Amino acid sequence: MAERRIVEQAMRDVCLRAGFGEVMTPAFENSELFTLRSGQGVIDEMYVFKDKGDREMALRPEITASVIRFFVNELSNNPKPLKLYYVGNCFRYENPQSGRFREFFQLGAELIGSKNPETDAEAIALAVNCIRASGLKDYTVRIGHIGILKSLVQAEIPDPQVASEVLRMLDKEDFDSLGDMFDARVLPRQLFDKITAIAEMRGSIDVLDSLEEHGAVHHLREIFRILALYGIEDCKIDLGIVRGLDYYTGMVFEIDAPALGAEKQIMGGGSYTLSELFGGEPVFSTGFAIGIDRVMLALAAEKEKALYLPLDAYVIPAKDDMRDDSFRIVAQLRAAGLRADVDLMRRNMSKNLKYASSVGAKCAIIVGSKEMASGSVTFRDMRTGDQKIVAIGAIAKAVTALG
Amino acid sequence: MAERRIVEQAMRDVCLRAGFGEVMTPAFENSELFTLRSGQGVIDEMYVFKDKGDREMALRPEITASVIRFFVNELSNNPKPLKLYYVGNCFRYENPQSGRFREFFQLGAELIGSKNPETDAEAIALAVNCIRASGLKDYTVRIGHIGILKSLVQAEIPDPQVASEVLRMLDKEDFDSLGDMFDARVLPRQLFDKITAIAEMRGSIDVLDSLEEHGAVHHLREIFRILALYGIEDCKIDLGIVRGLDYYTGMVFEIDAPALGAEKQIMGGGSYTLSELFGGEPVFSTGFAIGIDRVMLALAAEKEKALYLPLDAYVIPAKDDMRDDSFRIVAQLRAAGLRADVDLMRRNMSKNLKYASSVGAKCAIIVGSKEMASGSVTFRDMRTGDQKIVAIGAIAKAVTALG
Repeated sequence: MAERRIVEQAMRDVCLRAGFGEVMTPAFENSELFTLRSGQGVIDEMYVFKDKGDREMALRPEITASVIRFFVNELSNNPKPLKLYYVGNCFRYENPQSGRFREFFQLGAELIGSKNPETDAEAIALAVNCIRASGLKDYTVRIGHIGILKSLVQAEIPDPQVASEVLRMLDKEDFDSLGDMFDARVLPRQLFDKITAIAEMRGSIDVLDSLEEHGAVHHLREIFRILALYGIEDCKIDLGIVRGLDYYTGMVFEIDAPALGAEKQIMGGGSYTLSELFGGEPVFSTGFAIGIDRVMLALAAEKEKALYLPLDAYVIPAKDDMRDDSFRIVAQLRAAGLRADVDLMRRNMSKNLKYASSVGAKCAIIVGSKEMASGSVTFRDMRTGDQKIVAIGAIAKAVTALG
Repeated sequence: MAERRIVEQAMRDVCLRAGFGEVMTPAFENSELFTLRSGQGVIDEMYVFKDKGDREMALRPEITASVIRFFVNELSNNPKPLKLYYVGNCFRYENPQSGRFREFFQLGAELIGSKNPETDAEAIALAVNCIRASGLKDYTVRIGHIGILKSLVQAEIPDPQVASEVLRMLDKEDFDSLGDMFDARVLPRQLFDKITAIAEMRGSIDVLDSLEEHGAVHHLREIFRILALYGIEDCKIDLGIVRGLDYYTGMVFEIDAPALGAEKQIMGGGSYTLSELFGGEPVFSTGFAIGIDRVMLALAAEKEKALYLPLDAYVIPAKDDMRDDSFRIVAQLRAAGLRADVDLMRRNMSKNLKYASSVGAKCAIIVGSKEMASGSVTFRDMRTGDQKIVAIGAIAKAVTALG
């Protein structure tokens, strides 16, 4: 938890510096809020219950729908773009395993009110800077655009119902069934080859050179250009990101931590319009959510040892009549900003030293009557065992000097 | 939320400095976990639901039970005392009103493994220091001891069933019914007078002088002595804190924010044994929980204006071809730790200045081609309207100088 809170705070700082304000929404809402937005996979995994007023509620499976509802109800007249971020627990009833928990935490952001490439770039930059701030070294950023496949399919398949069906299969990345369908409906095989070729396009921005220079391609180029100005040059194109075709409208992006194997995705996002679902005017938005639990797993995989917050000092009364002075001294160390503790169990000296060692205290401050008479204590470096006499006013400095 | 997170972080720092480590437990657990611990009032207000495995789950109404379960299952062999703290959302189905929300947040701590007065004092000191760190000025700390009334009743009423009934009425602070019961059972009126006199005792530590010097009284004196050593001298005795007689075993304490009226209690806690409920050895513990929402309400009542985190700088491209330089500059300001934003909407100058003003930016950085040619920008103080030319490398310093 100590490490987790440090990572979370680092990400919050990134959001605040980029002008994002935090919002908080309820842990559960009317289940309809989430079924309106989410695919069937999420709906099947929702924790749904009736409250005492017989309303069907759901523990939130994600937070974007709540933020957009909040925007429609309370913030729709604010100057655009709105830059909102959130941190909270979400719930999905799935088989628990590493990286898949029934309760999990997301930090996410929504930029509401624009479909400019600069908005998309800003969202991507924020997500990447959050991941960088976490300390994670090995991650990959992949950016795609729903519009490229969508516009191709819609242009080449005049029947909107058939086009829709094709897009649904693309969404599931079910290319075998898609091929069968092309055969059954006698759709041009050439189009199938073109679609699968695009869906497999990934690499540097140059892979776009083989495509016609239409709107979506230009949009992606603009995003990459702005990201470079922001100092973010480690992104790749991946036109195979097709999940959520019914929801996302343009740019989509994902960040992976390869160390995590099958559950390697630590962030997902893209541009969408959602507010009309909740009775608002259609408003373009771009958002993302980072899986904090997975980021922590990825960080753990990169490090030999977890970050550890040991006690700076453990204060030990040498005898019972030194307890009062010990309380005064520990209060002083805490006021100086140190992590300090004191014997609360009335242990003897050797048991206290053992305790100090077991909790990883950097030093023990031994309060004896002889030393106190001259305003001093015995300062014991718990790593080396070295002891010295230190004036009470100088303890904090001596502790800090231990590093 | 900005203010809330600052308050929360200040309280976390207090916990960490005092050697408390954070733990996290699930937002919902088997409902039995909470019914074992809590009084009927809490049980009636629980959000209970069946999960897909037909288990009866409850959204947690409080977090202590989960922490003690965690202790029994995972931490019972750790050196004592364990010093654990937590922050999380809790749920109660009650009529929503100011200070009573169906989802609310608690920061709490449990000291597990000791019944010494120094443990109780440490818990009280932590709670008081958390409240002080929040910035709240007007609060009262009241400390009582369940044992004083309990031992009196048990000593003077030999029938344990009758004694139990008396304690239950005391718990409800229902002195009228208690009087009636004394009459009906022909219990000594003198005992009733003594009980009510004790339950009304409040004030400085000197009010204890009128009581016999038995264990609980001595325990309270020790707590007050240690609190003074910790620099906490603003506590009062209140022997009227009798709630939860079936649960708390010794010291009990509450902190109020008088500004909040009827819902003025912002913290409650005391010493208890709980681990045996969850299959562990009986272990003495002292804990408390602070209602973060109420602390925020109390802070708001004390302040004329809520704390506000405005943008430090809003970067405006003077013309379209200055957009790239604007992105570079905003990235640089953010990297310098400033809260900086940039035009993402392609607004014209006057609309951009209006936006900067509406979001409370301290200054606008206007990026024009002439100034950029000499590596400078126009720096506009949004409060005074004053403008000056500033070198790009000196923007961060100029922003910081605005204070």
